[in-house]
Amino acid sequence: MKPFMDRDFLLTTGTARTLYHEAAEPMPIFDYHCHLNPQEIYENIRFRNLSHLMLGGDHYKWRAMLSAGVPEENIRGDGSDWDKFAAFAGMLKYAIGNPLYHWTHLELQRVFGIQDILNEASACSIYDSANAMLATEDFRCQPLIQKMNVKLICTTDDPCDDLRYHKLLAQDNSFKAKVLPTFRPDKALHIGKEGFAEYVARLGEVSGVDTVDLTGVIRALWTRLEYFHAAGGRISDHGFESINFAPPDEVLANQALRKALAGGVVSEQEVATYQTVLCLALGRMYHARGWVMQYHIGAKRNNNRRMFRRYGPDTGFDSIADGEIAQDLARLLDELDATEQLPKTILYCLNPKDNYVLGTMVGNFQGGVPGKIQFGSGWWFNDTRDGMVKQMKALANLGLLGHFVGMLTDSRSFISYPRHEYFRRILCELVGGWVENGEYPADMDTLKELIRGICYENAVKYFDIPLD
Amino acid sequence: MKPFMDRDFLLTTGTARTLYHEAAEPMPIFDYHCHLNPQEIYENIRFRNLSHLMLGGDHYKWRAMLSAGVPEENIRGDGSDWDKFAAFAGMLKYAIGNPLYHWTHLELQRVFGIQDILNEASACSIYDSANAMLATEDFRCQPLIQKMNVKLICTTDDPCDDLRYHKLLAQDNSFKAKVLPTFRPDKALHIGKEGFAEYVARLGEVSGVDTVDLTGVIRALWTRLEYFHAAGGRISDHGFESINFAPPDEVLANQALRKALAGGVVSEQEVATYQTVLCLALGRMYHARGWVMQYHIGAKRNNNRRMFRRYGPDTGFDSIADGEIAQDLARLLDELDATEQLPKTILYCLNPKDNYVLGTMVGNFQGGVPGKIQFGSGWWFNDTRDGMVKQMKALANLGLLGHFVGMLTDSRSFISYPRHEYFRRILCELVGGWVENGEYPADMDTLKELIRGICYENAVKYFDIPLD
Amino acid sequence: MKPFMDRDFLLTTGTARTLYHEAAEPMPIFDYHCHLNPQEIYENIRFRNLSHLMLGGDHYKWRAMLSAGVPEENIRGDGSDWDKFAAFAGMLKYAIGNPLYHWTHLELQRVFGIQDILNEASACSIYDSANAMLATEDFRCQPLIQKMNVKLICTTDDPCDDLRYHKLLAQDNSFKAKVLPTFRPDKALHIGKEGFAEYVARLGEVSGVDTVDLTGVIRALWTRLEYFHAAGGRISDHGFESINFAPPDEVLANQALRKALAGGVVSEQEVATYQTVLCLALGRMYHARGWVMQYHIGAKRNNNRRMFRRYGPDTGFDSIADGEIAQDLARLLDELDATEQLPKTILYCLNPKDNYVLGTMVGNFQGGVPGKIQFGSGWWFNDTRDGMVKQMKALANLGLLGHFVGMLTDSRSFISYPRHEYFRRILCELVGGWVENGEYPADMDTLKELIRGICYENAVKYFDIPLD
Repeated sequence: MKPFMDRDFLLTTGTARTLYHEAAEPMPIFDYHCHLNPQEIYENIRFRNLSHLMLGGDHYKWRAMLSAGVPEENIRGDGSDWDKFAAFAGMLKYAIGNPLYHWTHLELQRVFGIQDILNEASACSIYDSANAMLATEDFRCQPLIQKMNVKLICTTDDPCDDLRYHKLLAQDNSFKAKVLPTFRPDKALHIGKEGFAEYVARLGEVSGVDTVDLTGVIRALWTRLEYFHAAGGRISDHGFESINFAPPDEVLANQALRKALAGGVVSEQEVATYQTVLCLALGRMYHARGWVMQYHIGAKRNNNRRMFRRYGPDTGFDSIADGEIAQDLARLLDELDATEQLPKTILYCLNPKDNYVLGTMVGNFQGGVPGKIQFGSGWWFNDTRDGMVKQMKALANLGLLGHFVGMLTDSRSFISYPRHEYFRRILCELVGGWVENGEYPADMDTLKELIRGICYENAVKYFDIPLD
Repeated sequence: MKPFMDRDFLLTTGTARTLYHEAAEPMPIFDYHCHLNPQEIYENIRFRNLSHLMLGGDHYKWRAMLSAGVPEENIRGDGSDWDKFAAFAGMLKYAIGNPLYHWTHLELQRVFGIQDILNEASACSIYDSANAMLATEDFRCQPLIQKMNVKLICTTDDPCDDLRYHKLLAQDNSFKAKVLPTFRPDKALHIGKEGFAEYVARLGEVSGVDTVDLTGVIRALWTRLEYFHAAGGRISDHGFESINFAPPDEVLANQALRKALAGGVVSEQEVATYQTVLCLALGRMYHARGWVMQYHIGAKRNNNRRMFRRYGPDTGFDSIADGEIAQDLARLLDELDATEQLPKTILYCLNPKDNYVLGTMVGNFQGGVPGKIQFGSGWWFNDTRDGMVKQMKALANLGLLGHFVGMLTDSRSFISYPRHEYFRRILCELVGGWVENGEYPADMDTLKELIRGICYENAVKYFDIPLD
Repeated sequence: MKPFMDRDFLLTTGTARTLYHEAAEPMPIFDYHCHLNPQEIYENIRFRNLSHLMLGGDHYKWRAMLSAGVPEENIRGDGSDWDKFAAFAGMLKYAIGNPLYHWTHLELQRVFGIQDILNEASACSIYDSANAMLATEDFRCQPLIQKMNVKLICTTDDPCDDLRYHKLLAQDNSFKAKVLPTFRPDKALHIGKEGFAEYVARLGEVSGVDTVDLTGVIRALWTRLEYFHAAGGRISDHGFESINFAPPDEVLANQALRKALAGGVVSEQEVATYQTVLCLALGRMYHARGWVMQYHIGAKRNNNRRMFRRYGPDTGFDSIADGEIAQDLARLLDELDATEQLPKTILYCLNPKDNYVLGTMVGNFQGGVPGKIQFGSGWWFNDTRDGMVKQMKALANLGLLGHFVGMLTDSRSFISYPRHEYFRRILCELVGGWVENGEYPADMDTLKELIRGICYENAVKYFDIPLD
């Protein structure tokens, strides 16, 4: 029996252990997509206790607690930090087989050096030990990130954002990780949703462009993209429940926009046309600036209206959509490719039924840089051992695992960096297993080169962002 | 090499063996969903031979026999019991990797103590040995069930059923298993299908309520639900090929009902509206009475019209649907949750592509009791080792396996209880494997508590049905 | 650690090794579906070098090369054969976990006896060694095929094809493999697509039947089917992106046909009606002649219009569709079954989400010969170890693996026969693993019979094609 989560956690073969400890483990972290708050990074916040650090902003954990029947006051409510932590610790044993179990213990081990198992009995002493450390300077936000060997953090930002904290961070020489903004123009695409007209008006103000028609909206977005580019941004991000391609009729798109801005009701067809036209325009902008475009496909958000009214979005009430995506996604990418304006693109799916659709879709539009179109790492509900193995096996079977840009945290929690370690262990176990089974030559130089590539170096090359 | 199906069948690690033999194996069976006939239980029927017991009512086996090219007369036709059994035995070797192979041998081992492998050569002697036992009192229906340590059986019943045999069984102190009815109102929902108006009329008669409009149908169902409740029923069940949510317009639903009762043709929209309104009304009834609601989603039934005409439903001509379910299921559950009237609910999918949809859907609506919304055990075509492992891994990755209410037989066969053993071995192998691999602490007290919970105790708590 | 791809490649247990070496390995190859060119076989072509043999026609390899960033000139362009081979060799290390890695080394080992690992360093010497062999008579097309122990090759042919080379091959007593045509009438079904009217006119000419209406088209196809039958053809093949069943209204189908032939635009409904009616007519023809019907479902072709214009179809720009198939496929098969005119049928899916849909669909329509309706082997993007394991596990769980007709190459490459070996190793590893784990009796006679069946003998019986 292997000991619980020791230094060879998840590594069952000699080759896996060698690859992990000698190639993967020493690599820095290039976290090209997350949801951290740049203000909190800049302000180098102090965490008031382990509950704040571990449970703050982490809807994965809230969701598990609600599933265990923990009362709302000890999840998102007015309960004390200790009561919430105790409730979390009490839930944890039921999370057998859930990545939360591993993440939590990796966090305790790597951040605090605490090797204990968290449960009802140990919760209090772990809480006290960790809190004592959190009270010191070494456990503020910035040193925590540096301790994890993070070289780059790409946050997720609205085009209207002034990027104030990104600019301040750029001037802060004491903090060693680069923090760059990511351009996420979802709100400009959400025609027909509440607040759309207000958002477009604000986009106009911020950009100094008159956003009363399609040309204006596109020009405003271009202005903001240039603004992000000047601040070091090189990546965009889009979220889609599903992809709805419509023939890119700009006249119709413009009419739809004007109708929506005037408070009219837009049809499904108008929505699809506007969104298609705008996605194409944005894709061409990314291509023109050499950016990477990310599509996150398949999240079905805010399913519980009672909870949405109480807590708003991103609080643990999202799940997986199951619509068809192949046809419309292919047409969208082809439209960009037809004029040779398809940017480097990463496609993520939330529904694992789409792994083989995306794993083959990327192959339709390759060319130029290695792995130009990427099938992105197991996302959110697939950010699990099984999910990552499925994604990597699909990618390996259908394309080239060796050109994969690897892991990202996609997290709202400052303590989530051990998820890169989790990914790396799973990667090395997978590859090591193949080698031990005679499926790939035991040429350790080549293997280490591949592992270092997937853990760090492929992303550095792909995103082409200079690291100081 | 492990011996064929010995006492450590499917258990490859020490931890798995300990968990199975010390925690899982001794647990009674709480079979909260099946299709057994309460009359046959009450009458304590005698099985005329092994063919009758093993092949009677078991369309899984009929289907395999037809796939092997066995002529109809020896499946559902006029062939002798022996010829059918011999044909089954001759087919069996081709069923390598099929759960039938394991179920059949578990049945022979556990019920009859027969350790032989069933094939053409052994069929005759096995048949004779088993038949000799079946001729004794100990192998009638009731002692068979008791031998399997079954504490509860929930049959599946139409709201119009008078529950005569359930009542008689409740008075029968000699039989130790509790037999309760389950409320399955599918026929009241099948507006537009043949026989609907007749069914609604019958529902009116049985309930003494005038079922000429929606209010009447709902009141009649409520009356019958109270009748089931008085007979000990605490569970309902619904079958859906897919979920079609429509805005719950009661006026439109009532019009659709009246049109259908008058022999008119109802549109798809009318069907969806009526069904949505009635599902919501039923959900609220279940909530009001503290019942558990089961949704079985994704069976595509009666695909072979030639065979349907000959043999009717549930005879081996069903398969898996592949429609989208996430959007409409979320809206249905949200509608119930919005007024805090969502009952405890178990969601089952027949298409394994929906495992991750359901595994995340349940998380949207939790709260109150642990695991209030359950992702149900691998159902029908997923009632296999692979299917159960996939379901449990999905549940573990996406939710809390520790609060799972576990296995049910869902069977029409009196000899299917060893399927609980099959499930338990698979569960212990899965959990034991995690422990042996250092993924969960080797704390045997906690592990046994979790295993006993999933095998029996979670269900006892969840369904809240007093066992004498 | 197992050595890289030695004689026990992929075989990790004693039972697997015994089954492979003693039962699977000696079996001939019955390649009942591929895309080889009968003219090239007849002409017994010589391959000008290893690049020509390995990369010629193999869009799997081209696709991987483009994904690695290889410039077009060294893939499908004007680069030299050596430059292309060198580029392929340089890409290969990144294809870790991809079947290309294994196929390539199996090809080198089995065809040339080359045990080296192909990479940048070894490319030149491997190229020279292989080229020297390719210059000899023993490495022309026919001896290559015979060396692989191939007994039958079924090519894929248009109904208008004159089968000239099939006829010449039938007279060629020196070549030991039988080469038969397969009837693939896709173009007659593609109403509404460019070139349809021209195709129907040509069909009329070739068959000597007036194809101005539906009756004519059906009669012409029947004439051609008889022509294929006379040439030894016993198999048909259809490709569907998805299945669109419409009520088989022959009047409407005829109107649609006449409209399309007159240059009119046909509606989606007309397309579906025409295709349904024609598929039914074809199915009945296959049944009347005792043929096997193959449906390949779910390829989304020609996604990259820029590349399509440059290179045409089947050049590496296809991927996986994700539409719903259960409902319409069931109706199509039921329509044929209702009049007892459903032929023996093999259903293949490209999207692995459909494995369980097909695995259960086949069970709806069985009867007569064992495994009358087959769930076909892992196809194209599923022609991988993971894909084949998933397909075989689905088949085993849901039906009878023992009656499976097994592997086919479906390839455009003359060097692809080692894929049968790949399949057989995976099959023996799967079955051997079950036996070693106590899940099936270690009765080697029965096991070898099953393995020989799946590798060769089941297909011989199923297709009922006399081998000389």
